[in-house]
Formats: sequence, C-alpha cells, structure tokens
Amino acid sequence: MKTSKRETAVCLVSGGMDSATTLAIARQDYNVAAMHAYYGQLTQDREIKAFRDLVSYYDIKNSMTFSLSHLHQIGGSALTDPDIEVSIEGVRKDTVPSTYVPFRNAHLLSAAVSWAEVLKATRVFIGVVEEDSSGYPDCRQSFIEQFEKAVDEGTLPTTKIKIVAPVLHMSKTEIVKKGHEIGVPYELTWSCYVNTEKACGVCDSCRLRLAAFKNAGYEDPIPYEER
Amino acid sequence: MKTSKRETAVCLVSGGMDSATTLAIARQDYNVAAMHAYYGQLTQDREIKAFRDLVSYYDIKNSMTFSLSHLHQIGGSALTDPDIEVSIEGVRKDTVPSTYVPFRNAHLLSAAVSWAEVLKATRVFIGVVEEDSSGYPDCRQSFIEQFEKAVDEGTLPTTKIKIVAPVLHMSKTEIVKKGHEIGVPYELTWSCYVNTEKACGVCDSCRLRLAAFKNAGYEDPIPYEER
Repeated sequence: MKTSKRETAVCLVSGGMDSATTLAIARQDYNVAAMHAYYGQLTQDREIKAFRDLVSYYDIKNSMTFSLSHLHQIGGSALTDPDIEVSIEGVRKDTVPSTYVPFRNAHLLSAAVSWAEVLKATRVFIGVVEEDSSGYPDCRQSFIEQFEKAVDEGTLPTTKIKIVAPVLHMSKTEIVKKGHEIGVPYELTWSCYVNTEKACGVCDSCRLRLAAFKNAGYEDPIPYEER
Repeated sequence: MKTSKRETAVCLVSGGMDSATTLAIARQDYNVAAMHAYYGQLTQDREIKAFRDLVSYYDIKNSMTFSLSHLHQIGGSALTDPDIEVSIEGVRKDTVPSTYVPFRNAHLLSAAVSWAEVLKATRVFIGVVEEDSSGYPDCRQSFIEQFEKAVDEGTLPTTKIKIVAPVLHMSKTEIVKKGHEIGVPYELTWSCYVNTEKACGVCDSCRLRLAAFKNAGYEDPIPYEER
C-alpha cells in the first residue's frame, strides 16, 4: 500500500464508456478531480447525469461541470447543429463523420489544463481513442503530443502537466475487457448521440459500443430501443 | 486594388489597444470575422462594449461574443477571483502577475480555430504581445508556434489555419504609433482591469497603456480617474 501523498490529476469525463474506463484507470494512481463539459449537444442532460453518477460511484470530492456553449454557437457538427444529420452509416476509414465537433478536444484539454494549473495537478487524463473510433482528427496521438508541447510553453514555469490518454491505442473491445477487469460501472455510462432514455442502437457511437461489448463477450447493461 | 476574393480570417478582439490594432491590421488583407470572449472578469461589460463599438466602427458583418465562464469557475487569477488582488506594482521581469488567467489564450485560440474551421477561414489573428507586456506565458511566440502545430494535427486534413500575431514583437509604444498610422479608433478601446467608467490609471494594464501613449507622443483619448 502506498503511503506517500498522491499527486492530483484532472480527468475529463464525458460519461461514455471510454472516459469512464479512463477515470477508473486514473483513480488507481491519482487523487482525481473530474471535469465534464456540455455544449448544447443533443444528449447533454443524459451525459451530465452519467457524469454525476460516475462521480458519485467513485466518491470523487472535487468535480466540475462547465459549459462550452460557444461550440453550439459555432456549429458545424451534427451534435451541435440540428440541421446536420447524425450519421448512421457506420464508421468509414476515408471520411470524418458529421458528428465531428470542430477542434473540440482542444477546448476540453484547455479547460483541464487551466484547472490543473490552479490545483497544482501533474496530469490531465482524457479518454480519446485513435484507431478503433470515429476518425476525429483531435483524437490522434499526434494531436495530443503537440498539445502537450503547447501546454509546456503556455503555462507557468513551475507548472508541469503531462497529458495521459490510457485508452488511446486500445480497441473498443479491449477497453470493455479492461473495464470489466477493474470494475467500471458501465450501467451508469451513456454513449448514444441521439436518445436519452433508450439508446438508439444505430448511431455510430451506439454501433461501436455494441460491437465492443459483443466482441468482448459481455452484455451491454444499458437499455436499447427495440428494433 | 485587389480584385480577387479575399480569404477569411477570424480575429480575436478583447477590446484593448493591442487587439484593436491587430483587428485594423487583419482587415487590410482579409475578410474578418470578429470574436470576443467574456469570462466574468471585473470589467466584462465594458470590454464587450469596446468590442461592439469596434465591430460597428469597422462595419464587420460576422461577429460573435461568447462565454468562457468556466475560467471564472476555475479561478486562480485576480481577473476572475475577487479574493485575489489586481497587482498595481508595475510589471516585473521575474514574476508573472496576479492577473494571469491560467492558460487563457489556449481557450481563445481553440474557439477561434473551431470557428475558422467552420467558416473555412485560413487565418486566426490574436493580439498577444511578448516582450513589452505582462510576462504571461501564453503570450509568447513559442506558445503560439506550438499551438499552431497542435491545430495542424487536431483539425480536418482539408483545414489549413495559420495563427498570426502581428503585434507580438512590437513594443507597446510601437503599437500605438502603428495604430495611429492606420487610424485605429483608440477612443473606443478599453484596457483598465479594474474600472468601467474612468480608467484607474494604476493597474498594470493602465500603466503599460499610459506609458505607451506618452512615449509615442500621443494623448490617450479615454477618460482616467483624477489622482
């Protein structure tokens, strides 16, 4: 058992399966402050509930929800502009889907770094997934690495923050397996881009999640619409 | 006279003398979309007025004010936390003043890049000043350069955005001289960190501004408190 005082990490938690698993990993070694952004996306309230349920489950003392409402003002994504349709064609290798929110992860990381600087935290955790995911450019290792260099240059000389993305190179199936090993309460999470009571089962996010649970050999504990 | 269609640039405008000069420079060559963030800072409403007055003066068709209220939630700065005092000791080379808002410019640049990606703009202008300024780490060229690399990695393959900081290496005196050459309406700008009707004249921002006008040989057209 460790007796030294734990360092603090800020963990970004959307409330989906990847960030819930990231949170579970972060709290193994750090004193976690959890952070959730909402920005007028279709399932905003359901995601805030998932975040609060996870914070409560893990008994996290320091948590914050905050608004990135300008992402809604800026638009350009099916998640923030009701005139753009959520793609249900499945994830393809050659295009970025309509659910891409322009440069969103830079906003999330900026918020986490600002809070980390105030809290004197040494790590920022984010649950991005590169390969087996939606092809968003701001989920790539190359982006995370460059952003970390910008953090080094743009914060105080005494601030030393590393960005940790523990599921970046896992497949979604591996994430579900890892999550079950460490007891992630997936029944509290939410991934659907469209619905807030029963997941639609056909949006890209639902498809990726359902396939991951199936391939990992577990039943997904959240409710789905019958089809 | 140019006959080709101008490219679009997103310009961040706080409403102070540096960003007003940056806006005047940007509109010489670009079709400008202007953007202003507020975050519960002491002089928020006065700065929004300065922004709107500049947008109106320059007849800018596409403008947006947006909230970064989480900077207020996060705190850690004299500008966002009423328990931290605004420094009036003058700018020193060896410390970062209490008015530093942790990693603020990353939030501003992220917003400008997101909007630029939606507008298919090719430039983001920001009025940061490195040498002759307050010593904020997120006002340095090294930060801007690293952030631009993060933008390359974190946006769509078709998105090509350069960050332009035209007053970065000017002294405040040079900025005032340049601004007068190109007709910047400094009477519409606001720099004071503390007051909203008559500038205090003693906060770091007022001191830097007053010295710049004096050294450039111009009278500062905004009202100051009598002392």
